[in-house]
Amino acid sequence: MDQQQAAICQWLDKNEHRAIRLLQKLVEQPSTQGNEAAAQAIVLEKCRQIGLSIDVWEPGGKKLVQHQHFSSTRTNFKESPNIAAVWKGSGGGKSLLFNGHIDVVPEGDPTQWVHDPYTPKFEDGKVYGRGTSDMKGGNAAMLMAIEALVKCRAELKGDLIFQSVIEEESGGAGTLDAILRGYRADGAIIPEPTKMKIFPKQQGSMWFKVAVRGKSAHGGTRYEGVSAIEKAMIVIRCFRELEKLRNVRITDPLYSATPIPVPINIGKISGGTWPSSVPDEVILEGRCGIAPDEQPEEVQKEVQEYLSRLPEHDSWFEEHPVSLQWFGARWLPNSLEPDHPLVKGLASSCRTVTGKDPVLEASPWGTDGGMLAAAGGIPTVVFGPGITETAHHPNEYIPIKNVMESAKIMALFALNWCRAD
Amino acid sequence: MDQQQAAICQWLDKNEHRAIRLLQKLVEQPSTQGNEAAAQAIVLEKCRQIGLSIDVWEPGGKKLVQHQHFSSTRTNFKESPNIAAVWKGSGGGKSLLFNGHIDVVPEGDPTQWVHDPYTPKFEDGKVYGRGTSDMKGGNAAMLMAIEALVKCRAELKGDLIFQSVIEEESGGAGTLDAILRGYRADGAIIPEPTKMKIFPKQQGSMWFKVAVRGKSAHGGTRYEGVSAIEKAMIVIRCFRELEKLRNVRITDPLYSATPIPVPINIGKISGGTWPSSVPDEVILEGRCGIAPDEQPEEVQKEVQEYLSRLPEHDSWFEEHPVSLQWFGARWLPNSLEPDHPLVKGLASSCRTVTGKDPVLEASPWGTDGGMLAAAGGIPTVVFGPGITETAHHPNEYIPIKNVMESAKIMALFALNWCRAD
Repeated sequence: MDQQQAAICQWLDKNEHRAIRLLQKLVEQPSTQGNEAAAQAIVLEKCRQIGLSIDVWEPGGKKLVQHQHFSSTRTNFKESPNIAAVWKGSGGGKSLLFNGHIDVVPEGDPTQWVHDPYTPKFEDGKVYGRGTSDMKGGNAAMLMAIEALVKCRAELKGDLIFQSVIEEESGGAGTLDAILRGYRADGAIIPEPTKMKIFPKQQGSMWFKVAVRGKSAHGGTRYEGVSAIEKAMIVIRCFRELEKLRNVRITDPLYSATPIPVPINIGKISGGTWPSSVPDEVILEGRCGIAPDEQPEEVQKEVQEYLSRLPEHDSWFEEHPVSLQWFGARWLPNSLEPDHPLVKGLASSCRTVTGKDPVLEASPWGTDGGMLAAAGGIPTVVFGPGITETAHHPNEYIPIKNVMESAKIMALFALNWCRAD
Repeated sequence: MDQQQAAICQWLDKNEHRAIRLLQKLVEQPSTQGNEAAAQAIVLEKCRQIGLSIDVWEPGGKKLVQHQHFSSTRTNFKESPNIAAVWKGSGGGKSLLFNGHIDVVPEGDPTQWVHDPYTPKFEDGKVYGRGTSDMKGGNAAMLMAIEALVKCRAELKGDLIFQSVIEEESGGAGTLDAILRGYRADGAIIPEPTKMKIFPKQQGSMWFKVAVRGKSAHGGTRYEGVSAIEKAMIVIRCFRELEKLRNVRITDPLYSATPIPVPINIGKISGGTWPSSVPDEVILEGRCGIAPDEQPEEVQKEVQEYLSRLPEHDSWFEEHPVSLQWFGARWLPNSLEPDHPLVKGLASSCRTVTGKDPVLEASPWGTDGGMLAAAGGIPTVVFGPGITETAHHPNEYIPIKNVMESAKIMALFALNWCRAD
């Protein structure tokens, strides 16, 4: 570690309490979809204090909603602002984008939380609350990293761009709109909750809905009907086989520690209307993983083709094929080779700060990285302080040690990256 | 056929058009649960024309709702009257009860009906509409049979009692209240839609609800969770096995033509809340048949014991047993031996009218026969003109030939039964 690197790390160590306070203030604002403005106001004030050039806008318009990669449950983003804040470099260097989302998923059943999800407690080195890991802890780390660079008078050639976007949890419309507004960079880091691992590759995912048909009858003469529930069991088994087939193909060592690299999850089932009638329809809803090197369209085709072979399992499906629909949210996959300068540089910064080699893996979920790559052509890596397992769960938390370490790593990486030509 | 029998049959043949009109008037009133009064008014007027002693009342009160056999989705029956109408015998003979329910199940999706369900058409010898088979056709047949006996000056010793009750489709609270009001008889016929077969035995049924637990996780790391949908598939298979086990025991020849004498039907399934989460709960709702000679309590015990062996199939159930609940409607089973005088006498009347031996079977569903037997100690047989398969279905119909034949059979049977000591 050279003198400037050491100064940056020391500044961050001394300002840990301010990182905690910033994170708590962000978590206090329940920035679920449509309610992002108050949390963005905290981000805005922090960017102003640091001295960045600020751009705030509400996403929207034809160009956005008609874009081939647009995916959201809404088309009106009024009162849901995006923020981009730039620290202009002296020129000639590589630019870097720090991208984080401000939206959080709903808190769910409040009785399952030990503390109120929006009254963040700091206990045993951890901050608890909705969005701490996913991903306000990552956002706080980015802002602290930039502040450290500014305060320690780092001289960057390339621009350092910070984004606090909406809509990641619904498919990335916030990040897409930032791209459409013109924001580009030579590389991007998204500090989603990777538990300090580096994810050069991220899987995408899509939602599907399958309608399985049966034939109604009175339950007392159920043999005169055909149970859509029993037929749905065959469809579910078929999805298990397809999942196996799709996953044996994945030989990427980044997935070697993952039991099922790109899962197909059946998340919802509903069917039948009356206990003593044979159910004549069952609806399955699920999520299909997209491998980092796959196109969503080819996966859709594979699923459709596989389901069209259901009559081989049960002749009922010959006359009553299931209907498949892709609906709701979609996250694009993303892939960088492990020897890409962005990955290698970030790994090197990890070693400088922690003294250890970082773990490289491929992600089990989608991020805005797929959008940055597909719509913006921006090489992106995912690396962040949050705890994967607590995201979307009650009693979500983040170790503040991770927040500070990731801030140091991102600051030192930006220092190198943006100084190079 | 003696002269009086022939006269009764001739009177009925001459009055077929009045039977059709009566049935149409009954069907025109949509007597779904809570809306029975207008249809009962038609019944009432018919009973008055025939000259019966009429008793009309709204069921209810502590004695009803706290009765061990009470089963209904409501406890208030205001504006839902029961009717009993008696043709008093000269004394000393056996009494006979004609019992029919006035409630119909809802019409369901109206687009699946060729004609409006409550504008009954008479076409090709059939009357179409909700409730024609289940069981306003049977009710019309009973009323026409009684009218024929009255008009042909039959002299009965025992009382002939007619009942038009509410709540059969919800578990028999109407019939139970008639019993509690004091109505008893030496035998009863219920003209539910048996397609002119005689059902000396009727299976009962009960509704159950099973909650199957899983463990939530993100769909992208579904291997960290436990899918309640997959565990529910094991529970469904377990119900199939139990159904097999329960049905191999049934050797009664009355069930020899029935593929599954007492089915267990899984009618509803629902679970999960989000396509990309592993579902942590699935609720199954179903209907369990009760064999004619079984007690509901012993069946409940058998199901509970069978489910408690789920850990033998999957160790998950050791720590996460399913929860079983009996809820909603329940129909008691009923059993008369084929050589019971009620059955033999009715079969003999069938032969007199049709010239053929009637088919004897056991029913695939519950009726108010279980209630008459269990709460009233009244030997009961089920025999009626309706078409089983069209009950509870769109485009329900009944052949008017069946209505008239069953009226003749019931009239001739009453003539014999009520004249004997």
